[in-house]
Amino acid sequence: MPCLLIWDPVGWGMSDNTTVDPEAPTEDAYALNAAVVDAILAAVDVQAQSRLVELLAPLHEADLADLLEQISPQDRQKLIHVWGDKFDGAVLSELEEGVRDEVLEILDQDTLASAVQELETDDLVYLAEDMEASQQAQFLDALDDVDRIAVEASLQYDDDTAGRLMSREMVICPPHWSVGEAIDYMRTHDDLPDTFYKVILADARMHVAGTVPLGRIMSHRREVPLLELADTAPRLIPVGQSAADVAYAFNQYHMVSAPVVDVDERLVGVITIDDAMEVLEDEAEEDMKRLAGLGDEELSDTVWTTARARFPWLAVNLATAILASLVIAVFEATIEAIVALAVLMPIIASMGGNAATQTLTVAVRALATRDITRANAWRVIRREVLVGLGNGLAFAVIISVVGIVWFGSGALGAVLAVAMVVNMVVAGLAGILIPMALEKAGADPALASGTFVTTVTDIVGFFVFLGLAGLVLL
Amino acid sequence: MPCLLIWDPVGWGMSDNTTVDPEAPTEDAYALNAAVVDAILAAVDVQAQSRLVELLAPLHEADLADLLEQISPQDRQKLIHVWGDKFDGAVLSELEEGVRDEVLEILDQDTLASAVQELETDDLVYLAEDMEASQQAQFLDALDDVDRIAVEASLQYDDDTAGRLMSREMVICPPHWSVGEAIDYMRTHDDLPDTFYKVILADARMHVAGTVPLGRIMSHRREVPLLELADTAPRLIPVGQSAADVAYAFNQYHMVSAPVVDVDERLVGVITIDDAMEVLEDEAEEDMKRLAGLGDEELSDTVWTTARARFPWLAVNLATAILASLVIAVFEATIEAIVALAVLMPIIASMGGNAATQTLTVAVRALATRDITRANAWRVIRREVLVGLGNGLAFAVIISVVGIVWFGSGALGAVLAVAMVVNMVVAGLAGILIPMALEKAGADPALASGTFVTTVTDIVGFFVFLGLAGLVLL
Repeated sequence: MPCLLIWDPVGWGMSDNTTVDPEAPTEDAYALNAAVVDAILAAVDVQAQSRLVELLAPLHEADLADLLEQISPQDRQKLIHVWGDKFDGAVLSELEEGVRDEVLEILDQDTLASAVQELETDDLVYLAEDMEASQQAQFLDALDDVDRIAVEASLQYDDDTAGRLMSREMVICPPHWSVGEAIDYMRTHDDLPDTFYKVILADARMHVAGTVPLGRIMSHRREVPLLELADTAPRLIPVGQSAADVAYAFNQYHMVSAPVVDVDERLVGVITIDDAMEVLEDEAEEDMKRLAGLGDEELSDTVWTTARARFPWLAVNLATAILASLVIAVFEATIEAIVALAVLMPIIASMGGNAATQTLTVAVRALATRDITRANAWRVIRREVLVGLGNGLAFAVIISVVGIVWFGSGALGAVLAVAMVVNMVVAGLAGILIPMALEKAGADPALASGTFVTTVTDIVGFFVFLGLAGLVLL
Repeated sequence: MPCLLIWDPVGWGMSDNTTVDPEAPTEDAYALNAAVVDAILAAVDVQAQSRLVELLAPLHEADLADLLEQISPQDRQKLIHVWGDKFDGAVLSELEEGVRDEVLEILDQDTLASAVQELETDDLVYLAEDMEASQQAQFLDALDDVDRIAVEASLQYDDDTAGRLMSREMVICPPHWSVGEAIDYMRTHDDLPDTFYKVILADARMHVAGTVPLGRIMSHRREVPLLELADTAPRLIPVGQSAADVAYAFNQYHMVSAPVVDVDERLVGVITIDDAMEVLEDEAEEDMKRLAGLGDEELSDTVWTTARARFPWLAVNLATAILASLVIAVFEATIEAIVALAVLMPIIASMGGNAATQTLTVAVRALATRDITRANAWRVIRREVLVGLGNGLAFAVIISVVGIVWFGSGALGAVLAVAMVVNMVVAGLAGILIPMALEKAGADPALASGTFVTTVTDIVGFFVFLGLAGLVLL
C-alpha cells in the first residue's frame, strides 16, 4: 500500500492548526496585521477616503480602536480627517480615554451626532461619564430625546456602580404569561435589545418574580406557564452596588445576566456578563498597576502626562529611601570600621524586599477575590510568618557561607544569618498585615504597593544587620 | 405636618442600599458570613449531618468551595466525613487544586461516583485534566459511558487550548430550516444544554453556515428561514488555539459564544463567555504573580509547599543581589574614604528599581492585551526613555539638594544627580526592552519579574554612583 508513504501526519494532527489558514492562530492571533496597518496609513497619506473606508470595513470596532491608539498622534489626526463623514461611532466606546478625548475634539459636530446615533445607551453612558461638563452638555444635545433621557437617568447613579453598568433595554413579561404569549409578544416587537439571554418576569409594580432563560422558553410548549420555567429567586443586583462587587458576583456565581433593582426592589435595568467581564479585567489591571505604584495611565498617554503621573509615587519612594539612608547614617562609624558591611547590607535588604513583594502580591490578590475572611485570617498570617521563617533559615545558611568564604569571618557570617532570618520574617508580616489593615480600614489594599512594604524591610534589614554587626564585630 | 419630622432621608437615598436587606451589599457583599461559618463548624463538631446539610443547602457551590478552602485542614476533613453521602459534586470544579486533591482522597469511591453524575462534561474535563494517571483512570471509570467518552475526547487536546475549554453540548440545526422548525425541534428535545445563547447552523459535514442568537429566533415569525437571521461569518475558534487567545477574542470582540472547529473546519464544540471569563481572570492573576516572582501557589497551600515554591525565585534574587554586591566591592576603597557613599547609594538603586518596576508593569500588561505592536513599539520605547529622563532630571535636582544640605558637598550633590539621571533612563530601557525581548523570543514577558529588571538598575546604580564618586571626589 504505497499510499501510506505519502500520508502526512502533520496535516491530520488534532492539535495542529497551521493547515487551516496561514493567517490564523499563531502567537499573534488577533494582533493587528502590520501589512494592513501600512496600507491604511498609505491611504491616509494620499487622502483616499474610499480606499480607507474599504480597508477599515473588515475590522471590528475594537481593532479599529487599537489601530487608532497605536499610530502616532499626527497619523491619528490625519486618519480621522480622511475618514470624515464615514467615521464609525462604535469605535468611540472602545477607545482609551486619552485618545477618545483627542478624537472627540477632531470630529466635527455633525459627524459626531450621526456617529453616536447607532450606539446603545450603556455605551453612550460610558462615553458621557468621563466628559467635562461643557463637553457632556454638547454631547447630550447631539442625542435624540429617548437616548438623552436614558443617558441622563444613568448618570444620576454614582460612578462605578451597577446603575452605570446596567442597560435599560430588557425584555419584561407579566408573571402570569405562558410560553406562547411571551413568544407572540416578542414577535410583534421589533425594538428588542440586540442581545438578551433571559426574559424577566415582573409585576405591574416592577417587582421581579423570576427570570427565564431563552433556551428554556424555546424548549417548552406554548401553553406552559413561564413561572413554571422561571428561576424564582434570581440574584438581584442593588442599583447602588459597586461595579467591583457586581463583577465578583458574575464571576463567582457564573451568572450571565442579572436584573438590577432600586432601593424599593423595583426593576430598573439589567446587567449582562460582557459588562461584568470588562469590569473584572479592569479591576485586575488596576491592582497590578497600583502594586507597581502606577495610576491609571494608558499606553497612548504623552511623555509629559506619563512622567507627571508617575512622579508622586517615585517621590514617596525617594522619601522612604532617604528614611532608610538615615538608618544607615546612624551606623556610619561601624561601616567606617568594617567596609564589608556596606558591600553586604544591600543583600539583606533586597531579600527582604523580594519576600515581602511575594507575600504582598498574594495578599492583595486574595483580598480582591475575597479569599481572606475571618475564618482563615489568622491561619494565613501564621502561614506567611512561617514561610518567612523557613526560607529565612534556608537563606541564612547560604548567606553565612558566602560571608565566611568571601570575607573569612565566622562572626560576620553569623550576623548575616541572624539579619536574614529577622528580615524575612518581618517581610512576611509586613507583606500580609499592611494590606489586611488597609482593607479593614476601607482603603484599597493594593495601595500598600511595593514602596511602603519594602520600606519596612529596608529599614529593618539595615538596622538589624548594621546594629548587630556593631555589637558583635566591633 | 408632623410626619415630615420623622421622614428619614437615609432610607430613600438613591445610592443607599442598606434598607433593602441588612445582609446585602456592604463592603463585604458576597463574602462568607462569619456566623454561618461558625454554625457550620459547630454542626460538624457534633457530627450532625442533617443540620449540616440544612446549613449548606442555601450556599452556592462556589461559596461552598470557598468555605472548604478557608477552614483548617482538620475541619475540612471532618466536614467532608459528616457531609458523607450528601456531598455536592458541583463543589469539586470550584475548588483550588490542592484542596480538591485533598477532598478527592477523603471521599469514598461510591460518594464520588454519584457526586460527579450531575456535572457537565466541561467541568468533568476540568477535574480530570489535573489528576495523576492512576487517579484519572479511577475517576473516568466512575463516569457513565457517554460522559467518559466525551471527557476522553476532550483530554486528547493539548492543555490550555480551545479543545479543553469547549463544551460538546450544543444546539445545531440544518441551514435550510425555518424559525418554526427550529422551535419545534427544541420543544421535542429535553436534553438541551442548560444554557445556550445561539443555535449553530451546520450542514451534514458539520461545516458552520452561521449562528443565530436565540433572541432573534424568538422575535421572528415561524416561516422566516434561519439563514436570513444568521450571522453568516461568525468568528470560528480553531480547536488548537491557546486558551489565552480565546479569552482575548471574547473580551476584545464582546463575544458571548463561539463555535469551535477542527483543522478541517468541522464543528466540534462551542465555547461560552463564562469559560472565557475564567481564563481571562486566571491570565491576569498569573501575570501579577509572575511579576512578583511567584508560581501558581494557592492560599490554601501548606507552609512547606509555599516556602518551597517561593524558594527558587528568592535564590535567583540572592544571586543577583550578590552580583550587585560584587560591584560595590570593587569600590571598597572609595567607600572607606567617604562613608557617606554607603549611606546614599541605596537611594539611587531604589529609585531605579521603582521606576523600572513601573515601566515593567505597564509593558507586561500592554503585551498581554496586545497593545504593543510593530505600529507603536518604537514610540513606546522612546516614551519610556523620555519619561525616565524627565523624572530622572526632576529627582536629580531634588537629590542633589539633599546631598548638599545633608553632607555639605556640592560635588557629592553633582555625583548623586548624574547617577540618578543615568539610572532612571536605564530603568526605563530595561523595564521596556527586557519584557519585549522575552515576548519576541516566545517566552512569557512577565517572567522578566522585578528580580531581573531591578538587578540591572541595582548594578548600574551602584556602578555609576560609586564610580563617578571615585573619579570626582577622591
